[in-house]
Amino acid sequence: MEELDFLLGDFSCSWVNLTVDPPTTGSAEWNTERTMRGHFYVMDQTMPGLKCKLIFGRDPLTASFITYYYDNFGNFGTTTSPGWRNGVLVFTGEYYAFGAKTVFLEEFTREGENHYVKKGFHLVDGDRVPVDIIECHRKR
Amino acid sequence: MEELDFLLGDFSCSWVNLTVDPPTTGSAEWNTERTMRGHFYVMDQTMPGLKCKLIFGRDPLTASFITYYYDNFGNFGTTTSPGWRNGVLVFTGEYYAFGAKTVFLEEFTREGENHYVKKGFHLVDGDRVPVDIIECHRKR
Repeated sequence: MEELDFLLGDFSCSWVNLTVDPPTTGSAEWNTERTMRGHFYVMDQTMPGLKCKLIFGRDPLTASFITYYYDNFGNFGTTTSPGWRNGVLVFTGEYYAFGAKTVFLEEFTREGENHYVKKGFHLVDGDRVPVDIIECHRKR
Repeated sequence: MEELDFLLGDFSCSWVNLTVDPPTTGSAEWNTERTMRGHFYVMDQTMPGLKCKLIFGRDPLTASFITYYYDNFGNFGTTTSPGWRNGVLVFTGEYYAFGAKTVFLEEFTREGENHYVKKGFHLVDGDRVPVDIIECHRKR
């Protein structure tokens, strides 16, 4: 799970929603901690009106990561990731969100010890359609 | 989610492990509560040395239930269920458990307002191979 240790701790985030024109922005808290003797990490994502949980685990048989997502709108989804490749950590999987199924891709990059960025995309016929960009800075 | 309301609350459970000969027995606590504005139910399964979380949700597009499972040994899995059929509630899905992947089937029955039973099976070439039987009684 060490590849995911950059997520651990309490972060203040700013997000840009790219699915509307003009894009909207706001702030959030992404707080991640170890659970289940460190076999899983649980991220709580909080912003006004929206609470999400994202559970990260590891599949030893495929040497890949898995996630489970659920939120207070009833949305949910699972993804998998092969781990870090060329400086990016990419998760892909199917989500149910607000009445529709979508294939979602989340790409993490590290911008420093206390700063990471997540870019979200819908995958449509293999093409990346931008959904959001979220910048997370560790709280001091 | 009302079809799963029988799970809500605090239950004392007795289990029989049928994967060893002779079978072993023990006790557990299965406590389930609503979360995320009632869109999901979270069951905590506790017995000596083993802590498990099982998250239940609903997929409105397929009118089916979903579960996410993870525990303090690093095991995990997801299942789906069409809901109650002929007095049984059956979840099936793939699990990673103790180094191997398995297709798991869990069958719930209600034995009264405060008593339910879960029978677990491995699905091997379509056949049910018994894994365990767990009797849960609501705490007073």
